[in-house]
Amino acid sequence: MKGTLESYQRVDQLVQPLPPVKWPRTPGWRPQPKENPHNAWYWRTEITGAPSGKLHGKTVAIKDNVAVAGVPMMNGSRVLEGYIPEYDATIVTRILDAGGIIKGKSVCEDLCMSGSSFTSATGPVLNAHDNARSSAGSSTGSGTLLALKEVDLAIGGDQGGSIRLPAAWSGVVGHKPTHGLVPYTGCVPMDITIDHIGPMARTVADTALMLEVLAGFDGGLDPRQPPNLTVPEYTSQLTGDLSGMRVGLLREGFGLVTSEADVDDMVREAAHKLTSAGATVDEVSVPLHYPDGTHIWNAVAIQGCTQIMVERDGVGVGWKGFYPTSMVDALARGYNSRANDMSVTLKLLTLLGEYLNKNYGNRYYAKGQNLGRALTKAYNEALDTHDVLMMPTVPYKPVKLPDGDASISEMCHQALGLIHNTCPFNVTGHPGLSINAGFSQGLPVGMMIVGRHFDDATVLKVGHAFEKIRDSNS
Amino acid sequence: MKGTLESYQRVDQLVQPLPPVKWPRTPGWRPQPKENPHNAWYWRTEITGAPSGKLHGKTVAIKDNVAVAGVPMMNGSRVLEGYIPEYDATIVTRILDAGGIIKGKSVCEDLCMSGSSFTSATGPVLNAHDNARSSAGSSTGSGTLLALKEVDLAIGGDQGGSIRLPAAWSGVVGHKPTHGLVPYTGCVPMDITIDHIGPMARTVADTALMLEVLAGFDGGLDPRQPPNLTVPEYTSQLTGDLSGMRVGLLREGFGLVTSEADVDDMVREAAHKLTSAGATVDEVSVPLHYPDGTHIWNAVAIQGCTQIMVERDGVGVGWKGFYPTSMVDALARGYNSRANDMSVTLKLLTLLGEYLNKNYGNRYYAKGQNLGRALTKAYNEALDTHDVLMMPTVPYKPVKLPDGDASISEMCHQALGLIHNTCPFNVTGHPGLSINAGFSQGLPVGMMIVGRHFDDATVLKVGHAFEKIRDSNS
Repeated sequence: MKGTLESYQRVDQLVQPLPPVKWPRTPGWRPQPKENPHNAWYWRTEITGAPSGKLHGKTVAIKDNVAVAGVPMMNGSRVLEGYIPEYDATIVTRILDAGGIIKGKSVCEDLCMSGSSFTSATGPVLNAHDNARSSAGSSTGSGTLLALKEVDLAIGGDQGGSIRLPAAWSGVVGHKPTHGLVPYTGCVPMDITIDHIGPMARTVADTALMLEVLAGFDGGLDPRQPPNLTVPEYTSQLTGDLSGMRVGLLREGFGLVTSEADVDDMVREAAHKLTSAGATVDEVSVPLHYPDGTHIWNAVAIQGCTQIMVERDGVGVGWKGFYPTSMVDALARGYNSRANDMSVTLKLLTLLGEYLNKNYGNRYYAKGQNLGRALTKAYNEALDTHDVLMMPTVPYKPVKLPDGDASISEMCHQALGLIHNTCPFNVTGHPGLSINAGFSQGLPVGMMIVGRHFDDATVLKVGHAFEKIRDSNS
Repeated sequence: MKGTLESYQRVDQLVQPLPPVKWPRTPGWRPQPKENPHNAWYWRTEITGAPSGKLHGKTVAIKDNVAVAGVPMMNGSRVLEGYIPEYDATIVTRILDAGGIIKGKSVCEDLCMSGSSFTSATGPVLNAHDNARSSAGSSTGSGTLLALKEVDLAIGGDQGGSIRLPAAWSGVVGHKPTHGLVPYTGCVPMDITIDHIGPMARTVADTALMLEVLAGFDGGLDPRQPPNLTVPEYTSQLTGDLSGMRVGLLREGFGLVTSEADVDDMVREAAHKLTSAGATVDEVSVPLHYPDGTHIWNAVAIQGCTQIMVERDGVGVGWKGFYPTSMVDALARGYNSRANDMSVTLKLLTLLGEYLNKNYGNRYYAKGQNLGRALTKAYNEALDTHDVLMMPTVPYKPVKLPDGDASISEMCHQALGLIHNTCPFNVTGHPGLSINAGFSQGLPVGMMIVGRHFDDATVLKVGHAFEKIRDSNS
């Protein structure tokens, strides 16, 4: 082995290329509880970018699974606590280049493995509309900070719904872009095939503006991206006019086992209001969507996230691009020393992943990816006859945060039970936007708009048209 | 875990899409030793494709890491022995669609983890020019069968040189296409970032013809391919005229620790003959090529191949495309029951990979990939001033096969010591063609021509021009 081990000594000596950090900053500070009553900030900063640009003067919260150089990052987890990246995620550079002001890192769930808001090592994040309830996750703090009007814009990440779920339960807008449209470079991966990063805001116009800044090819640093990527001007297409647009209510996205009737009714009514903007609205069926879409996601996500994020230090192998070696080292050390501090959902994931690895190898992951192609085809056929598909983002309204007596089973169910309508689109990569359809019993109801691959413009356009109708009626 | 485990039951029930098998065949037969004196065939078949096409009437050997439906495939290893795939690799379909006749599966090294020709479970493959010597690998049988004129064309696979090395030592032509140009779908992966599959033949014209048939986008089934792939007509560019072409002899590809003077001299002389076709020939330097190029390859290949091919059943996770679940199951069973039968090189690889995984996590793999970008940039700068780079394929002539007294250390050195000039281009993905420069002491000397990404046409053009000069002189 001698000759080969010499290679590793030499690799240690060689200096690797790092993306340059452009804009100066201090490390910032961890806010006191009184500055942070909803527990939505992990860390506060004041990083000012270019003096002009599309985001000039806009304040931004960055989800804490996204690297901001020189600023602590724990990704909701004791496993990563103490880590300070020396690189900026590409989207951080793009926000600062466009004149945005980064106000801090928003709390996310423990390694983002939860759709509710109580697994972060820094404690539960409270819903802005009802302190006793979950604000959903894993881009937990980003949704809450927008609802509280503490920032104008926020970054979210989405592997099973984690942008769209907190947007729904905080009553704001969250857009999971088409897979690969926005570079994931410098964000903590879970599984490359389901990783998405994208904009959240209070209005569709701000969401579209932010997407214009975030989207585009990253020079080969992100393996999720195709090289021939063009980014249209999304904001100029927000006309409010949907003439000729065909909207399909996805039949299998309503009436789930967990669905609440007031949520289904509100989303159906909201969608039908789009006829006043010139759209036709009818029903379309994709039988594979539920529950098989969730089964397929489970097959992909559990082994994928276990193998890439947990066993292989957040990077895995087999792709070309930027590998953050400092994060690899920090995660490896964390898993060796803080595994017991992982959340119940993360422990469940790891146990399931190991059980599958040991007994079945990669069989279910492999079949899950193949079935993902069938699922993609099924949605694409519905999108041949319709420009967008619509359904509730979450089948039910925000639930109460679990109390100290909640069982592990109850906590796992709350954390992972709300992703049925969102997670299939992580496997297929279609763009999906969640917008507030209204309030029921004082709680926000989210509506999801799904479009064709790389036709994020149409999704935003429909969302904007609905927003106009909703706000003029209120 | 109950809810999630139900997902796996459902995934078992769902039927996954498989690429269709178009052309009928029998399972073929394992040839007797007298039909197979050089031990280069693993399996014989007679599969006839379309009645016309670019490859009409041409006979083809398929490397045994490429799936041919219904025909046994062992990839040189007891680990996979007994496996019969139910799908054709995309390139198998393309060969048959173009009228090729598949004569069988050629022997390859044990899971392709060797550059020499003695690790296959079916025994050593003998050099066609000297029975006592290695024919190089891992596309071992393909090179030998071409030299023996048993077939017109052959498929090779290349992760560290495995197309180019046997082409060099068998005195034939082998082309490692630009990474992603030829779909790898249905071939056994080692690490997605270094996997290549491509044509081998006795002439550059046949190699170019075969590449025209093999190359092109595979509809998203292979994650190595960019979607915007255009395939030029390579054969029409083989004019013999190199006017204005700038050929660079890569300084660091000569005078290696293991280099033989006659090999270096023959390749230098051969390259200078291209001036008679109108090219300019001078020297160009890429200091990172040797030995750092090999160090970087080691960092990527050892952990990549361990994690994807060995630990994760030949597929790994984190990419979209066709996952052959039957192969996943067969490899998983084989590793559980036949690990002791693995070759010394495969055992070395696995031990090194495990040592690294346990002690350093994915740190070296990650840094290796980052350094791979620096290496790519270094070659690209040389290719800014030169159209192709040239050097010996292997720094020395074919060596004697190890006898029964060879130590493990000697065997590993022979199997992996010849890749210094070839393996860096697996990390960077540049196209590389090996062509016979001549014979020294009765043994073939290979010359490698490396070109720009997706400019395989120029590489073939230079190879063809040299072939004309070489053959008119002899």
